[in-house]
Amino acid sequence: MQTNLTPAPLHAVELTSGLLAERMEVNRRTTLPIEYEHCRDTGRLGAWTWKPGSPNQPHHFWDSDVAKWIEAAAYSLAQNPDPDLEKRVDAVIADMASAQLPDGYLNSYFIHVDPSGRWTNLRDMHELYCAGHLMEAAVAWHEATGKRQFLDIMCRYADTIATVFGPGENQLKGYPGHEEIELALIKLYRATGEKRYLDLACFFVDERGKTPYYYDEEARKRGEDPQRYPFRTYAYCQAHIPVREQKSAEGHSVRACYLYAGMADVAAETGDADLLAACRALWENITTRRMYITGGVGSTGQGERFTIDYDLPPETAYAETCAAIALMFFAHRMLQVEKRSVYADVMEQALYNNVLAGVSRDGDSFFYANPLLVHPPSRGGWDARFPPERQPWFGCACCPPNVARLLASLGIYVCSRAPGEIWLHLYATGRVRLDAGSGPVVLSVETTYPWDGRIEISVDTAPADPFTLRLRFPGWADAARLAVNGQSVDTSERPADGYLSLHRHWQAGDRISLEFPMSPQRIKAHPAVRHAAGMVALRRGPVVYCLEEEDNGADLAAISLPADAAIDCDFADSPFPGIPMLRASGLRQSIEDWDDP
Amino acid sequence: MQTNLTPAPLHAVELTSGLLAERMEVNRRTTLPIEYEHCRDTGRLGAWTWKPGSPNQPHHFWDSDVAKWIEAAAYSLAQNPDPDLEKRVDAVIADMASAQLPDGYLNSYFIHVDPSGRWTNLRDMHELYCAGHLMEAAVAWHEATGKRQFLDIMCRYADTIATVFGPGENQLKGYPGHEEIELALIKLYRATGEKRYLDLACFFVDERGKTPYYYDEEARKRGEDPQRYPFRTYAYCQAHIPVREQKSAEGHSVRACYLYAGMADVAAETGDADLLAACRALWENITTRRMYITGGVGSTGQGERFTIDYDLPPETAYAETCAAIALMFFAHRMLQVEKRSVYADVMEQALYNNVLAGVSRDGDSFFYANPLLVHPPSRGGWDARFPPERQPWFGCACCPPNVARLLASLGIYVCSRAPGEIWLHLYATGRVRLDAGSGPVVLSVETTYPWDGRIEISVDTAPADPFTLRLRFPGWADAARLAVNGQSVDTSERPADGYLSLHRHWQAGDRISLEFPMSPQRIKAHPAVRHAAGMVALRRGPVVYCLEEEDNGADLAAISLPADAAIDCDFADSPFPGIPMLRASGLRQSIEDWDDP
Repeated sequence: MQTNLTPAPLHAVELTSGLLAERMEVNRRTTLPIEYEHCRDTGRLGAWTWKPGSPNQPHHFWDSDVAKWIEAAAYSLAQNPDPDLEKRVDAVIADMASAQLPDGYLNSYFIHVDPSGRWTNLRDMHELYCAGHLMEAAVAWHEATGKRQFLDIMCRYADTIATVFGPGENQLKGYPGHEEIELALIKLYRATGEKRYLDLACFFVDERGKTPYYYDEEARKRGEDPQRYPFRTYAYCQAHIPVREQKSAEGHSVRACYLYAGMADVAAETGDADLLAACRALWENITTRRMYITGGVGSTGQGERFTIDYDLPPETAYAETCAAIALMFFAHRMLQVEKRSVYADVMEQALYNNVLAGVSRDGDSFFYANPLLVHPPSRGGWDARFPPERQPWFGCACCPPNVARLLASLGIYVCSRAPGEIWLHLYATGRVRLDAGSGPVVLSVETTYPWDGRIEISVDTAPADPFTLRLRFPGWADAARLAVNGQSVDTSERPADGYLSLHRHWQAGDRISLEFPMSPQRIKAHPAVRHAAGMVALRRGPVVYCLEEEDNGADLAAISLPADAAIDCDFADSPFPGIPMLRASGLRQSIEDWDDP
Repeated sequence: MQTNLTPAPLHAVELTSGLLAERMEVNRRTTLPIEYEHCRDTGRLGAWTWKPGSPNQPHHFWDSDVAKWIEAAAYSLAQNPDPDLEKRVDAVIADMASAQLPDGYLNSYFIHVDPSGRWTNLRDMHELYCAGHLMEAAVAWHEATGKRQFLDIMCRYADTIATVFGPGENQLKGYPGHEEIELALIKLYRATGEKRYLDLACFFVDERGKTPYYYDEEARKRGEDPQRYPFRTYAYCQAHIPVREQKSAEGHSVRACYLYAGMADVAAETGDADLLAACRALWENITTRRMYITGGVGSTGQGERFTIDYDLPPETAYAETCAAIALMFFAHRMLQVEKRSVYADVMEQALYNNVLAGVSRDGDSFFYANPLLVHPPSRGGWDARFPPERQPWFGCACCPPNVARLLASLGIYVCSRAPGEIWLHLYATGRVRLDAGSGPVVLSVETTYPWDGRIEISVDTAPADPFTLRLRFPGWADAARLAVNGQSVDTSERPADGYLSLHRHWQAGDRISLEFPMSPQRIKAHPAVRHAAGMVALRRGPVVYCLEEEDNGADLAAISLPADAAIDCDFADSPFPGIPMLRASGLRQSIEDWDDP
């Protein structure tokens, strides 16, 4: 079995300036506190101690919202101690502890609202999903604070789940309608070393989609006709066929990518080549057929789902913030196993163009759907589901705490290590402290990436033994320039795995100069993408640009960009210092002399 | 008050060959019988005699489906006697007679299923809508067969409705959630001369949209919160503001156009200039901002509704068959009052490009929605609501019998009369028998329109006095050639009202030669139609063409038409004799050397 990469642990990466550091700072200062308030004011925080007759009756997915917020808080605390925040979380954990049933069961909705419904509707009720998010939160909390209480609570809950579900004669053969617990069990396994959590994750992954369908039997037991499933087929929740046979990304895109991330986790732990092959097939399908140029996935709001190959409408795109995050999870996991830059490319693409779009610059409002074309007058009037502006909160509030935990944990996506190797995936100004096997390595990175392609890396601390520094050659870049201590390195050939390699006996003070020249690029969609016929996208570095009414007036669709128009990159006049605008001379169809009929 | 035109009565126009005659023939031979069978097999025909506990419990809009089928049967019988068909209808009428309550009430759902619900939910339950369709059917049946039974039944029902609703102290101030009864009451008024039906139509039209909203009060009486109206605002059913204040077409497009047709009817009968002005404003809004090039209306399936100006997506277009029919109704009524060819132009546009598309050539399957772009793989899989093929029937079966009654009554759209005038609106081979005031006029028309722009008209019978023949100069035509008995008539200037005038003392044997040269035209959408950016439509005569995979292979969106490409009209190779194909050399973007990512 080959060695997988290990992502940077929580404390290893400190981003100090630049776009990502700013987003993390806003996330910590604004997003986390306001999300706490929303969770408190809507009753989510009080769900575990809710009493019948009180307002704010717990909803069956509320636990997951709070769990993601705690996970975000944990990542934040790992780098920025904050006693008040820590107290807030400890209070919620105390509520959970008091609510946990003697057998370890812990779900606010099923404890307080529908006790007899426990484990009777895995398909629709997000029960295992909520458990998964709580597990992730508990692992993060333990890693960030060293406190065991929450982790112990969740181990007890996981133990009861492992009793209820499994291959044994008296165990249920069920699996979650909304995947999530698979990847969470792997985290719990890694945190505790308890193999039964890995086994349960394997069970959930491989039980999925077997016939006769568990969901059919489960529905009949509830006295329901399985044929009346509102989403028609179990492809909606990736349970139409066993996961190893799945070759195309189907159904609800968040569920799908959480599952695929869990599959990749299981494959990474077990070395299961078949399962990894299934992951690869799904990855290929998504990234070459079912993904927007923004890294967004989910072509339609109807079922928030993948549709068919090359079906990528820009205006009715769903591209849920959570789905892009889930795709980053999948990408990040595949990257550690496959060690190829394409995974980091997509991770970066989704991060800069879909995930960051999901939250405002101020950090206090959010997009749920991230279409590639928004025509404000068409939104909010006859169709109020997706207003054109970011919203402070949602009834189904999955996205805001999801983006909060992703941003709070950005460091782990920046780099990985392997014996004798340090891998840099994302470029941002900051410090990396890792051990490649023979003692600590400290690297300082300076760059204004993604607005400029120059990256300066200095070795602050070097270990005794030589090691290899592996630097991602981004897919968007046509060329690379690399020098070590002023000495040029040949980069004329793009490495097969997409990483430039520098193996040497490093010394403190060594300096690496890296540059990926950035210029505006025209990107066209595959000709089979019928919605993009005649359209061109503009990208510079990893960032996809958009044309806005703010700059170009109304009726943007009346504007065209001649094929030979020069596209200039303008830092000077940009309303956002340091962030370049693109400027080109286009044509606008006149409506002046338009004859009305 | 100016004189309005009077449409040709049912018997006046006989279409003998060509596209419209063929569609009428298929409608009579195939569509009417199969619709009878569907209505019978689904329980619709048995709704009036339904007994609790039996299968096929009546649904609250079933009466309207059967009514439209009877109306279609009546129009068909007017020109093609068919004793079996007549017997079938008489049997249904007998069932209705037996079901009618002593007070005249007649609605199968509320009689048999929910007697206490009668008149408690005008907003949602289609009760007045069903009554309206039955009235239309009764008037048609009376006109076609001379039989009074059905008309009497419906007069009794109308009388009870006029007792329940009206301005009096003890009368309900309600109006239909789905308009239709307004125009039906005008038909009943014209058939009977009873002014109370006109008064009731006026009441329904003008009560609509007054505040406090009747629907609010009605909902509260049912113990429901009016705020929970699923369509959010009463704009959905055109009841947000009084109709005279409505300047844009809002909400459900079939309801809207039925209302506007009823408003035009009321204005025509009362000479109410304000109401007519409201109709004109709505017409302008629809035809210059909210109508597809096919004459289709309703830009979205969400609420089957109008959206906002210039919002005309091709693929998610709803363009319901019923809505195009309703627009024809509105156009036809405005035409009689306004006497301007633009109304006939839109009527023709909707007929050839949306209504006829709603039914198969064989007459046995139907489209409900008629989008301008269909990508078959995207339909029927994850989104099963709108399959790419026509369907034999629908659970909500409004469209099939609607298209049947429209086709069966096509003759009334062909021409109109006024004192001393005969107006020809639609061109098709056949005979017209009308009286312009001084005795019968018989005209024979020969043409292969819409496939060719040449029309030969001969006067077979002429009256003693001179009269004016008015010939529509279609909006699509750039020029006209006209000659009477070989003598050329100047047509260099398009008449202001769009009709060429020939005033003379006509003699039997006079021949009129008319030609509107047809060549393929490129039509572009208004620049504000963002969905049509970079697109061009091809039209020849009144017919809009489409690009099909059958002729051009898959991935149609990869094909572009150079601005200077010649477009040839090809009769010889067409798979449909007499119907020309358009042929041009386009460019197809290659996918051969497309790099996967």
